[in-house]
Amino acid sequence: MTTKRKRAGSADGAESGHSGHPVTMRDVAEAAGVSVATVSNVVNDKKSARIGADARQRVHDAVSDLGYRPNALAKTLSSGSSKFIGLVADAIATTPFAGQIIHGAQDEAWKHGFVLLVANTEGDPAAEEAAIAMMLEHKVRGVLYSTWFHRAVVPPEALRETDFVLVDCFEANSVAPAVVPDEVQGGYTATKLLLDAGHRRIAFINTTSSSPAQTGRLEGYHRALVEAGIEFDPALVLEAHPDQEGGYAVTAQLLQLNVAGVFCHNDRVAMGLYDGLREHGLTIPRDIAIAGFDNQEVIAAHLRPPLSTVALPHYELGAAGVRVLLGIDSAPTAGPLLVACPPVPRASI
Amino acid sequence: MTTKRKRAGSADGAESGHSGHPVTMRDVAEAAGVSVATVSNVVNDKKSARIGADARQRVHDAVSDLGYRPNALAKTLSSGSSKFIGLVADAIATTPFAGQIIHGAQDEAWKHGFVLLVANTEGDPAAEEAAIAMMLEHKVRGVLYSTWFHRAVVPPEALRETDFVLVDCFEANSVAPAVVPDEVQGGYTATKLLLDAGHRRIAFINTTSSSPAQTGRLEGYHRALVEAGIEFDPALVLEAHPDQEGGYAVTAQLLQLNVAGVFCHNDRVAMGLYDGLREHGLTIPRDIAIAGFDNQEVIAAHLRPPLSTVALPHYELGAAGVRVLLGIDSAPTAGPLLVACPPVPRASI
Repeated sequence: MTTKRKRAGSADGAESGHSGHPVTMRDVAEAAGVSVATVSNVVNDKKSARIGADARQRVHDAVSDLGYRPNALAKTLSSGSSKFIGLVADAIATTPFAGQIIHGAQDEAWKHGFVLLVANTEGDPAAEEAAIAMMLEHKVRGVLYSTWFHRAVVPPEALRETDFVLVDCFEANSVAPAVVPDEVQGGYTATKLLLDAGHRRIAFINTTSSSPAQTGRLEGYHRALVEAGIEFDPALVLEAHPDQEGGYAVTAQLLQLNVAGVFCHNDRVAMGLYDGLREHGLTIPRDIAIAGFDNQEVIAAHLRPPLSTVALPHYELGAAGVRVLLGIDSAPTAGPLLVACPPVPRASI
Repeated sequence: MTTKRKRAGSADGAESGHSGHPVTMRDVAEAAGVSVATVSNVVNDKKSARIGADARQRVHDAVSDLGYRPNALAKTLSSGSSKFIGLVADAIATTPFAGQIIHGAQDEAWKHGFVLLVANTEGDPAAEEAAIAMMLEHKVRGVLYSTWFHRAVVPPEALRETDFVLVDCFEANSVAPAVVPDEVQGGYTATKLLLDAGHRRIAFINTTSSSPAQTGRLEGYHRALVEAGIEFDPALVLEAHPDQEGGYAVTAQLLQLNVAGVFCHNDRVAMGLYDGLREHGLTIPRDIAIAGFDNQEVIAAHLRPPLSTVALPHYELGAAGVRVLLGIDSAPTAGPLLVACPPVPRASI
């Protein structure tokens, strides 16, 4: 911590290093007793260049001794291939979901020597256009276009100037590669949590907003019941605005159904329902068992009792998006690549 | 949407565009009837080059007609100045706080023609080292080193190879520029919300973990009471683990204090306290008024009743960090730049 440093903002601050000036290729050449051209060839992995193993070793030693940092941008230009992957996210600031997509995409990108150029748009078309233009100008290898909740999108035209993968979203009637959560399997899994606890009469509080989650989770709920030999009863499917207020508002209606368990469209609905049930003097899970969906940070693990739920695999969506972009995984030719939603059992069932 | 495009991962996919091949500088030169060198000079704003206004205009027209995208990396190298600002974040995936810092930093960076290189470390030192090395290799203008909660840090040595600003954290006994929330003003503001509602006997549930928030918010609470002519009573200061479980656990102890209002260290503590008070049959705010801190997404606005709180200014921390890095704002020579925490009145007081 003793190193003296310039204040940020100083004109030559970006040049400031331990030695006062940055280590140059010439410094490396002198230390290694070779030409600058040789250093450049070694540092940039110019296969064509004929360089003795001994000289090559001396360059590598000098690079590490002096702490020389090659210029990744120059490398990109000389090799002609960018090491950037763009990631457009629409809600970094409002949910941890986008952050988990970034985390997964970054871990996978780094494995393959790529760096993420992340742009947050908060859904603003102008910011989106600027973000994609910026990425194209940086000659990204491709772009992950991601949304914080699973939905159909019309990808911006500019995306088609490069490779792209839709993450947590998809384009209707299109071959555009996409990676999305498996809503049907997720709904099936949430319902199974309740069935496996011995409950037979199970309600489903679905969302009022039409989405792949609305249809997919319902189908999974239906499938799990039928598989358990329970007849599907549409009267047990309620609808609520997909947040705490919606879950609270539907409480009275739910209680008339006399169910042993309820699968909530998401954890926020479950949180609101907790409040409603408490006001009716009911205890979870003794009086009614509850399963959520999302495994939302800050909420799911901290409700009283902690919520049994199903996790949205945002980390894996980001990682899979990168693998599809780089051609390591391939998206199915028809429809998006589905990523499983794992169960997270806690104490509400 | 009719444009045919290659699947992501195709070898030459990164080259794919509307016309099947990317628009080159040569295409622009032909369309404009000038040399490639002239196009390069115009596109890269080479002031030195003497180019007629007419030719310059023809180049600009051709660029927009053909949709040519200049290579930002080449531009960076030729101008010698990078347009990157690095942002290291330690918890993108676990709270929306980091996302709000990114949002603010990006908006401010874009204003000044800079692009963010974001790296998520989840607090892993190896990931942190790799992230900073990556940024240095991209010749970033500087780095914002950010943490998701306000704390003292020892910045990684590698940061000192460039300009950096600490965001939501600081280095003890150091001149390293830092931007942090004003905990004292925030604690003062939260307490004022309760005082202004006419409450006089007010408890403070502080955190058990020592931090600038622990000391700062207590000082603000103390200051607000004294200013209101109320004697500070240490017996009214409780401690709880800073989450829902901690707030719930302290309920009985709080009720013995017989207070009209309580300022909770954060919104999560308030959320747990809500549960505890309900179990005792108490109604908020009728029986006891509650103020939180953080204005945490997904929680604060959605509790029953919605929580009156004070916002952590993460967006503004990110934006201010960029301004300090670029020398637009200057951090005080002694101690970090303090960013105010605004009140967010709702229905719990």
